[in-house]
Amino acid sequence: MDFQDYFPVWKKLTPAQQERMLGRLTSRKVNKGTDIHGDTLNCTGLLLVKTGQLRAYILSDEGREITIYRLFERDMCLFSASCMMSSIQFEVCVQAEKDTEFWVIPADTYKSIMEESAPLANYTNELMASRFSDVMWLIEQIMWKSLDKRVAAFLLEEAAIEGKPEIKVTHETIANHLGSHREVITRMLRYFQSEGMVKLSRGMVTILDEKRLRDLQK
Amino acid sequence: MDFQDYFPVWKKLTPAQQERMLGRLTSRKVNKGTDIHGDTLNCTGLLLVKTGQLRAYILSDEGREITIYRLFERDMCLFSASCMMSSIQFEVCVQAEKDTEFWVIPADTYKSIMEESAPLANYTNELMASRFSDVMWLIEQIMWKSLDKRVAAFLLEEAAIEGKPEIKVTHETIANHLGSHREVITRMLRYFQSEGMVKLSRGMVTILDEKRLRDLQK
Repeated sequence: MDFQDYFPVWKKLTPAQQERMLGRLTSRKVNKGTDIHGDTLNCTGLLLVKTGQLRAYILSDEGREITIYRLFERDMCLFSASCMMSSIQFEVCVQAEKDTEFWVIPADTYKSIMEESAPLANYTNELMASRFSDVMWLIEQIMWKSLDKRVAAFLLEEAAIEGKPEIKVTHETIANHLGSHREVITRMLRYFQSEGMVKLSRGMVTILDEKRLRDLQK
Repeated sequence: MDFQDYFPVWKKLTPAQQERMLGRLTSRKVNKGTDIHGDTLNCTGLLLVKTGQLRAYILSDEGREITIYRLFERDMCLFSASCMMSSIQFEVCVQAEKDTEFWVIPADTYKSIMEESAPLANYTNELMASRFSDVMWLIEQIMWKSLDKRVAAFLLEEAAIEGKPEIKVTHETIANHLGSHREVITRMLRYFQSEGMVKLSRGMVTILDEKRLRDLQK
């Protein structure tokens, strides 16, 4: 499978636009844990995931993190190319959560094609709207949901992504996803364990009672 | 001044597109406090503000509110036309904060022009990126800033909008902007008053010490 099969509106680009994009494209392979895009203002470019998993997060001055969305196979990251639009006045960090293969489209190449291509500009709109929806969901979670519900939702989502109830994750990592502190997460997980909903072991959380974790959401 | 002078990429539309847009346009005049767009899934259309001030907010199941952005003269509201893009999976409410005059562009009209017009699609991208930046700022505020800083920031912003230190606002309204409770806001404002930063009177907060409110942000 080539880039052409992964890029969503490929067939709606003109041959000249396709050639321009292919000519500037690079592909990268990184190991789990690699920082792909930092929160300084350099412009890595648009990332299109071939295999693996990325997470986009923001960072506070004190080094606290919160995950804002995740990218899986065929997903594209726009905000790693924030220099592309003057109205993008924030910066995200992107990190590989698994060994990941992806393509990088330079921001200026993408921008120049988007300016003349209504299909690419409309696709970009849908992409941004979709991330916007993720972020609005996140605001609702932060504002109206208590932390027990958010931790339960995180564990259920992880188990769904991995397809099994054993989740390899540290308490520190969960805290970084949810914008919380390790100590707070540890306390919550111990409560879940005492209630028989999960089992804790070194670097691992195992879901024992999925139904009760789901019931917490209500 | 006509719609043509307010609509940002008017001159980049074709005469046929301009005619289509003008033919479907309506204009409205509402009083302060009017609900313009609800959180049910009906699609009011895109709103372009001529004069006045609107606020967009989200609503929790329990009826708590939080303001996500504001719209002033020449600003356009996209998310009151959420049916326009399938990826917009959230709903905002829009309310007039002052007596407001605005145009409504039906979502299907805007969408059909955007699909063929790269300039309009690119403008829409910038617009969404700009709102996205507002919302990312909001997440940072909610996550990393304590409520005293957020109340101070709100008062300073209101004073800047009105161009004077007397802010006509109830504690309930401040709570609705910040996603908090009236009692909590009242307690905070009384603390500010005891510190000499503000003076409270019926339906009014007067800023006495702008510098100290600003220092709170640091």
